[in-house]
Amino acid sequence: MVVVGAGFAGLAAMAEFARMGWTALLVDRQPYTTFQPLLYQVATGGLNVEDVAFPVRSLLRWMGRGRFVQGRVVAIDWDGGKITLEGGRAIGYDHLMLATGAVPRFYGVPGAENHGLPLHTLSDAARLRTRLVAELERAVASGPGPLRMRVVVVGGGPTGVETAGALAELRDLLTGRDYPELRAQDVSIELLEATPGLLPGFHPRLSRYAQSELRRRRVLVLTSSAVREVREGAVLVDSGPRPADLLVWAAGVEVPDIPMLRGLPRTASGRLVVTPSLQLPDHPEAFALGDVAGARGAASELPQLAQPAIQAGRHAARQLSRIARGLEPQPFIYRDRGVMATIGRRAAVAELRGGLRLTGTTAWLAWLGLHLVELLGVRNRFSVLLNWTWHYVAWRRAAGLIPPAPG
Amino acid sequence: MVVVGAGFAGLAAMAEFARMGWTALLVDRQPYTTFQPLLYQVATGGLNVEDVAFPVRSLLRWMGRGRFVQGRVVAIDWDGGKITLEGGRAIGYDHLMLATGAVPRFYGVPGAENHGLPLHTLSDAARLRTRLVAELERAVASGPGPLRMRVVVVGGGPTGVETAGALAELRDLLTGRDYPELRAQDVSIELLEATPGLLPGFHPRLSRYAQSELRRRRVLVLTSSAVREVREGAVLVDSGPRPADLLVWAAGVEVPDIPMLRGLPRTASGRLVVTPSLQLPDHPEAFALGDVAGARGAASELPQLAQPAIQAGRHAARQLSRIARGLEPQPFIYRDRGVMATIGRRAAVAELRGGLRLTGTTAWLAWLGLHLVELLGVRNRFSVLLNWTWHYVAWRRAAGLIPPAPG
Repeated sequence: MVVVGAGFAGLAAMAEFARMGWTALLVDRQPYTTFQPLLYQVATGGLNVEDVAFPVRSLLRWMGRGRFVQGRVVAIDWDGGKITLEGGRAIGYDHLMLATGAVPRFYGVPGAENHGLPLHTLSDAARLRTRLVAELERAVASGPGPLRMRVVVVGGGPTGVETAGALAELRDLLTGRDYPELRAQDVSIELLEATPGLLPGFHPRLSRYAQSELRRRRVLVLTSSAVREVREGAVLVDSGPRPADLLVWAAGVEVPDIPMLRGLPRTASGRLVVTPSLQLPDHPEAFALGDVAGARGAASELPQLAQPAIQAGRHAARQLSRIARGLEPQPFIYRDRGVMATIGRRAAVAELRGGLRLTGTTAWLAWLGLHLVELLGVRNRFSVLLNWTWHYVAWRRAAGLIPPAPG
Repeated sequence: MVVVGAGFAGLAAMAEFARMGWTALLVDRQPYTTFQPLLYQVATGGLNVEDVAFPVRSLLRWMGRGRFVQGRVVAIDWDGGKITLEGGRAIGYDHLMLATGAVPRFYGVPGAENHGLPLHTLSDAARLRTRLVAELERAVASGPGPLRMRVVVVGGGPTGVETAGALAELRDLLTGRDYPELRAQDVSIELLEATPGLLPGFHPRLSRYAQSELRRRRVLVLTSSAVREVREGAVLVDSGPRPADLLVWAAGVEVPDIPMLRGLPRTASGRLVVTPSLQLPDHPEAFALGDVAGARGAASELPQLAQPAIQAGRHAARQLSRIARGLEPQPFIYRDRGVMATIGRRAAVAELRGGLRLTGTTAWLAWLGLHLVELLGVRNRFSVLLNWTWHYVAWRRAAGLIPPAPG
């Protein structure tokens, strides 16, 4: 078995293989895995880079089984049953798990890819933090004026909402303190969403709560504001240009058109077509898992989130066990545990199974607990807990704003 | 007052100014300060980037006084009394403190600057860690062979000894565990020193102890081995070429020939000539502090270490107070508190005031305590303590080996 991609789906498959006593091979471009749901905290200085990343090899050691090869897969030889890595190395497989994830989606908006800062990888988070510090210093040096730093976040989904909320808290913490030259009102934060409401997919009550909490934190929320074009220093929406010294692009993800995936049929949203059991229709020896796959839930395609990816990884590994025993693979049934997003200190929204909807402190505590439990590794959990506790008690950003990738 | 450079010397001056009730201006290229003595721990995965860096603005806030401007000084107008930043901004001063530090020294060895990885800045530490991970994966992919990864450390001073010791521990921790494909004997570590003994300046007994402890950890120590040339994959010493997949350059520092320092007289070792009170002979309104200055101790120039820098910063600030009161500045008298270097777990050497010499666990505990106390910031101290405790208890590297500057 070869698993490509060390995200939630790939690692869940590896863990399930280890439990079954099988030794699978995991391939990824990076030697570490990233806890993507908390990248916005790294970008805004609440967590350190190392709090949300973990060495793949350590994880495999803890699972007790599994091998790792670092490399970028450039081609799949479906007939020969082998993958080729950049540099030419070929690795044969009997069964293949594709869990290669997604990339930020720019919807063909001119200038978006050049000027927008996505928040999808560890490097993205490091880059955004570095830019944030640089912009703060630029704002200080710019001297007095009506608005000295304008931050625009594009995308009103969970990532956009969480980033805008964290940026607002950061602004209120730093201005007048570490940056005595700046007042909070010198820094504007805007959140642009193309649809009429924030957090599409959440219940309207939670969406309204998120919007009012963001407004209370002085984030200007503009809904029904699709971005038409991005230029240096400005974003164009239908109502006109909005100045932007810093542009965070959190408008969703898509499956990239990379050589290894060429020739595989895609769904309308560009994800790989899979059978109900998550196999590729023309290549039943291969499964597609997580963000890359267009697995369907009851009504529509499953959201590209951690929970569906983890459950899909586990399911696919179990089907290999069935196939090995001569049984038919079973369809994947996603168990929806709910969705959550945090806006700030003691302000979050949670939509749990059975229609339970939480807001405020309760939702925030639920969000905190869930993320702590899901964070990989005991030591990371300790460290994150320490950072968060400190952050909460001292009412300041724990990590300060040290650019994690200094130049 | 304008202080250029937010290292040990510059920050000590700022702290003393704050105590005196004076508001000075600090200028640095970076918005954070780096605890350089522990960079080798960041490079070898024992500490996180954020454990040894701290935002300058937070430090100034804690000092209670002081302003900060981020920028690179490109020129000093001595007659006009102003400095010019990259970009053209000019800042006037009545008194100036030059604490701009040093850079790695390559002694004109051909190829050294191209192929050697220094360990002087946060970026250096991040780069070395990234290269280390990449080399380990390359060694795994290279397949069986007599020696699959060869690390050479150039320089047998404290930084070289500490780095070689940490690399040896890391090798023994990772091989057979996170890297089951590698055995400890597949990875060689060599330490090259130009003089006949390690740790020049320490007592010969401590030097011998360091050498035997490193040998016990299977580091090949080659003394009297000056590097003549560095090529891709090899280092040339008099006895012949030594293959090197990874080359750490820890052979000392020098004051760079940067435009802002042009025209100032230098000592034989290239440091700025200063009066006994640390003033520039031709510009008594300016002081030079720390690594950049050739301040003299009882016998020779003071070592380019944290302690002399801190004491010099404090001294210079106090002299300004004397000058303001119409008094003559006093000569700087360095109080030598001793020197230390750690080789590994419970193995260190310390040479303290009054001829007290420690080795082994006692010296290691002294080293640990000293660095914890000196680390800036309460939260960093917590975090470092947590990382170290975890490291010690779990007998593994805390941070794993996540490259802190992923690309």
